[in-house]
Amino acid sequence: MKELKNDRLLRALQRRPVDVTPVWIMRQAGRYLPEYRAVRERAGDFRTLCTTPDLACEVTLQPLQRFPLDAAILFSDILTIPDAMGLGLYFTEGEGPRFERPVRGSADVDALHVPDPEGELRYVMDAVRLVRRELDGRVPLIGFAGSPWTLAVYMVEGGGSKDFCTVKRMMFEQPSLMHRLLDLLARSVTTYMNAQVAAGAQALMIFDTWGGVLTPKNYQEFSLAYMKQIIHKLVREHEGRRVPVIVFTKNGGQWLEVLAECGCDALGIDWTADLRDARARVGHKVALQGNMDPAVLYASPERIREEAASILASYGRGNGHVFNLGHGIQQRVDPEKVAVLVEAVHTLSREYHD
Amino acid sequence: MKELKNDRLLRALQRRPVDVTPVWIMRQAGRYLPEYRAVRERAGDFRTLCTTPDLACEVTLQPLQRFPLDAAILFSDILTIPDAMGLGLYFTEGEGPRFERPVRGSADVDALHVPDPEGELRYVMDAVRLVRRELDGRVPLIGFAGSPWTLAVYMVEGGGSKDFCTVKRMMFEQPSLMHRLLDLLARSVTTYMNAQVAAGAQALMIFDTWGGVLTPKNYQEFSLAYMKQIIHKLVREHEGRRVPVIVFTKNGGQWLEVLAECGCDALGIDWTADLRDARARVGHKVALQGNMDPAVLYASPERIREEAASILASYGRGNGHVFNLGHGIQQRVDPEKVAVLVEAVHTLSREYHD
Repeated sequence: MKELKNDRLLRALQRRPVDVTPVWIMRQAGRYLPEYRAVRERAGDFRTLCTTPDLACEVTLQPLQRFPLDAAILFSDILTIPDAMGLGLYFTEGEGPRFERPVRGSADVDALHVPDPEGELRYVMDAVRLVRRELDGRVPLIGFAGSPWTLAVYMVEGGGSKDFCTVKRMMFEQPSLMHRLLDLLARSVTTYMNAQVAAGAQALMIFDTWGGVLTPKNYQEFSLAYMKQIIHKLVREHEGRRVPVIVFTKNGGQWLEVLAECGCDALGIDWTADLRDARARVGHKVALQGNMDPAVLYASPERIREEAASILASYGRGNGHVFNLGHGIQQRVDPEKVAVLVEAVHTLSREYHD
Repeated sequence: MKELKNDRLLRALQRRPVDVTPVWIMRQAGRYLPEYRAVRERAGDFRTLCTTPDLACEVTLQPLQRFPLDAAILFSDILTIPDAMGLGLYFTEGEGPRFERPVRGSADVDALHVPDPEGELRYVMDAVRLVRRELDGRVPLIGFAGSPWTLAVYMVEGGGSKDFCTVKRMMFEQPSLMHRLLDLLARSVTTYMNAQVAAGAQALMIFDTWGGVLTPKNYQEFSLAYMKQIIHKLVREHEGRRVPVIVFTKNGGQWLEVLAECGCDALGIDWTADLRDARARVGHKVALQGNMDPAVLYASPERIREEAASILASYGRGNGHVFNLGHGIQQRVDPEKVAVLVEAVHTLSREYHD
């Protein structure tokens, strides 16, 4: 394996000194890029794009050819695991992901298995290996998975949801069945992420997209507990380097204290929290990643620079900040605005580091 | 005006003693009730239902005929004000409210006016008068409006939104135009709510449905500031009684301290906060209304009772709690479950009051 030329991300996630604040962008390989849309069209559909290592590798690298980002993140989907479990994933225009065979009862849960990362999910590991080779040590590669609760939401609802009534009904009415499903998912995610590390991922992120729709008590019992279970079984050292883990619960700003205790290295923060407050609340336990409102990228270059400056100032001096948006970049953003943001973060953050 | 036979709600909102915790339910007059669906069908469309005082009155009273609720809330829509401004409100199946002529630029804002509550909005005041007469002092009547920011979201986006990119672009790029729009909306809401009080509303609620999609700083500047402006100009005493004001920012759990300072009597709390923590954070400044996850109503009667008990216990002994869901009741809920909940709150809360 080649030496890592830019290790800012890994250093910041471990709260170690850096020259400037590292920056990457959730969904940086995505529809706002015309070159992504071209590959997507060539692939024919989203699923083919995800499951073809060459294409996944190509789009993973696209944003790095345009912008001096400090990390690559594997282009993939959070629903690869339930897909590999045989639920029949498909994508509809406008409505997002759907499953042909949602999980509704005990027999459905019994029928599930932990997917083999080098079997049904080999295409993901092949993509990781390919990206890592193509990156040639330029920046670290982030691997990821959805949180067990988030995967369960899609699997039980059969797709996205507005009110989460089916999955919550299962949680309230059949808590032990829900726990069985979540435990299976936690074991699957652990195996999957550890295989990503073996294949070359140098940092890991758990996306808990739907943890924030729960009560504090249910969040701890049905989402956080399973992320903890995963984190405690992840390989944290590989190729002689720490493999940092980031946990991101969207709308989890009220629960930063308990999140900071989950064993991860860093927390993703959405824009509804202030980084100064968040930093005070988590103390020295974790690094923070975030947290610009993605809609700022619709504003003028001047406004984008102002907002970047304000977020850097809110985190303040010292180590442990990775700049990112508070959620994925939106598809109608002009790529030039991303160039402005990345440049602003690198330039304006210099004064916060020695 | 008749004497008010059940003043638990008004007392609890003022943190005064009650025999049992009062309970009402957001969207208690709504699609989960077959008798509502019958009137809705008779009306032909949702807009006719809202704008015909007889029908609005009929559906307002329906849940009170079924359940011993401690308040009525006017059946209406939060978009009556922008509709009266001439934006051309219409409703689409599945997609919710839309405006034919969204507000996009300075000329659009210039063309807007403060609607006359006894002119274009007379149908709302007629409904308030009718409901108040029909209630005959049984329980208090709650009037309401959307927050200026929430109305602006619909007016600028032209309907609901997932990413709020148009309204946020205006906020970031043309803050003074956005402030002009919000100021006009604040004056409109003030006039509208004061007219509701004159017509017979005995408590008021401001629904800040979309305040929670902002950063803390933008929330204070673009949402909270205008709710404060309204509250400071509301008639707070009528018919010899205090007219309490409830403010509800969905997903505002991180900002309870500043919310508690806005001049309102009570805060609506969604289920992502714990009432014990919330109470500690707001101190003696305001009462709290909430906060059961609406999805609990899909569970068994036993589970519903357990959850009600747990929420009552989290608020604890003493005054200042109004039981409610943390968001509107969902349409697929069995009305029998509401009966279970209301009964549970009244029975189980007795021990928390002297």
